[in-house]
Order: sequence, then C-alpha cells, then structure tokens
Amino acid sequence: MDILTLIKTRRSIRKFKKKSIQKETIENILEAARWAPSGLNNQPWRFIVLDGGLKDKIAEYTKYSYIIKSADKIILVFLDKTSSYHYEKDLLAIGACIQNMLLYIHAIGLGACWLGEILNRRDEIKKFLGLEENLELQAVLAIGKPAIFPKKATRKKLEELIINDYAKL
Amino acid sequence: MDILTLIKTRRSIRKFKKKSIQKETIENILEAARWAPSGLNNQPWRFIVLDGGLKDKIAEYTKYSYIIKSADKIILVFLDKTSSYHYEKDLLAIGACIQNMLLYIHAIGLGACWLGEILNRRDEIKKFLGLEENLELQAVLAIGKPAIFPKKATRKKLEELIINDYAKL
Repeated sequence: MDILTLIKTRRSIRKFKKKSIQKETIENILEAARWAPSGLNNQPWRFIVLDGGLKDKIAEYTKYSYIIKSADKIILVFLDKTSSYHYEKDLLAIGACIQNMLLYIHAIGLGACWLGEILNRRDEIKKFLGLEENLELQAVLAIGKPAIFPKKATRKKLEELIINDYAKL
Repeated sequence: MDILTLIKTRRSIRKFKKKSIQKETIENILEAARWAPSGLNNQPWRFIVLDGGLKDKIAEYTKYSYIIKSADKIILVFLDKTSSYHYEKDLLAIGACIQNMLLYIHAIGLGACWLGEILNRRDEIKKFLGLEENLELQAVLAIGKPAIFPKKATRKKLEELIINDYAKL
C-alpha cells in the first residue's frame, strides 16, 4: 500500500480480537518508533510494553478502560526529561515517533488506539509502576487485531488549513 | 517500499537541486498532513507554503538559512490556538502531522529538513507575515529534490529505550 493510502486508511481501533501479538512484531513496532526524527537527534522517547494483568491494572487509570482491556498489549510512551533539550520540540518528536508506530501497526494489519485522556492520571501511573521522576507519560497505545474497523473518518478541508493570505500553492 | 524501510531510510536533506515542486505534489504533501490523528480530532495544524523571494525572507530568521535558500519551497506549520484543547497533546498531534509529510516526501523521491531552531524567532516571523495572534509557528519544512542524501544515521539501541524494569517484551 502506498504511503498516502496507508495514512488515509488508518483508524483508531477500540475493539480487538483475542489474538496474541508476537514479540518480533512488538520489536518491529518499536523499531519504527526508534527511527523517528528529533531535535538534535536527542531521541527523548522511552517505552514500556505491558500485557496481561499489569495491562489491565493500567486500564483503571482511564475512562476508556474497555479499550485497554480489549487490547492484547499496550505501549506506554514516555518523555525522558534527562534527554530533553526543549520541551515543546521533544513533544513534537514524540508525536512523530507515535505516528511511525501507528502507521507500521496499520500496515501489518493490526490496529491501535492512541489514548490521551489517561495522561490526567500520569503521576499515579508513574507511582504504580515505581518509575523514576524523569519519566513523563505522553501516550498509551492500545494494540491488537482489529475486531471493528471504522470506515468513516472526517477531516477539515485543505482550504480550511491553509492560511488565507497565502492560500496560493 | 514497505513502511519500515521508508521510515528507516528517511534522512534530513540540507542541500537541494534546482527543481520545481509541482502544485499537485504540495497538495499531496498537505493531504498526508491533513490525515494525521489528533486529540478529539481537533486538527490544530495550519500551513503556509512559500517559495521565491518570500521564502528567502524567512531564511533570514534562522542560522540555517542556507537550507531554506537551497530548498524549492517551505511549509510553515502552525498551531492554531483557537483550535487547541490541550497544548501538550496538540504538539504531539502536530508532530504526527509533520512525520506524515516527511514520510510522504521521502516516498516520492523528494527530501525535507525539519527546522526547529527557527522557532527562536517565531514572533518576528509572525509579525513579518502579518499573521493573527492565535497562530504559533511550530516548524518549518524545507522541501526539494535532494542534492546530497546522507547515508548514515544513528539511533539509540532498542535496549536503551525500553525502561529496564519492564524490558521483557
């Protein structure tokens, strides 16, 4: 599938089939993550992969727990503040890193949901997992084999996104 | 090219050939951008595409002006604060949006450099372009046909990115 089609057909998957994701697949997802660009190549992203009971404990920290419970595995994405050189640019880089994972996951016929609401309780999760102070949770990706694949998705028109005075391409 | 190879072979391009990018190509690049995910699907990204003399004026706001001058076109990526619902998550979304563009650009044999240092003078650029207060510059992408394509790139090993206590995939 060409990259533009891949980008446009990706959807947030919220319900998954009972099917295990292999270790090699997770390694490839993280390989996609690892090759994202970052300012000064500082690579501020860090990861924890969870499944089973520990995954379901993380589900308790979001109102979207059904998505995490339905998923086979979750990837917690952190900013390592000791690697940070510029907080805003680090977040942009982590966004690029997450998108690499989402595109790879979609390309191999799996699905993911990028969970953000869970960040409201990021400090409790850090405490629960016993993590160091420098690790700041930025996203949780719930991953599995899609059970329901939403067809429709909406986006603003290009005309709404190009700033008017400079609308001519 | 499969998505993992595409991700791993992308490089920052800093020197470009004299070759015009067609309007349709820019539209496709922005189409890739437009389909990025964002929290609550708020799509906080906005764009300005510049070339010629106006592009070269923007070059004056960065120490990497040679990259902008060498590029055929630049895309300025803004956060529209009136679309914002959560500043951090908006930046993550814009990072995903930028990565979509970088991957598409690489896939079609063009190249880009994601410029961040220029943000130091984002307010001056906003004033120069006469933009509204709500538009905050987040990145400039310099785009063109690569004249030099760097082969080597380095990344941390996966073992360094997975948080130790949970290293087992």
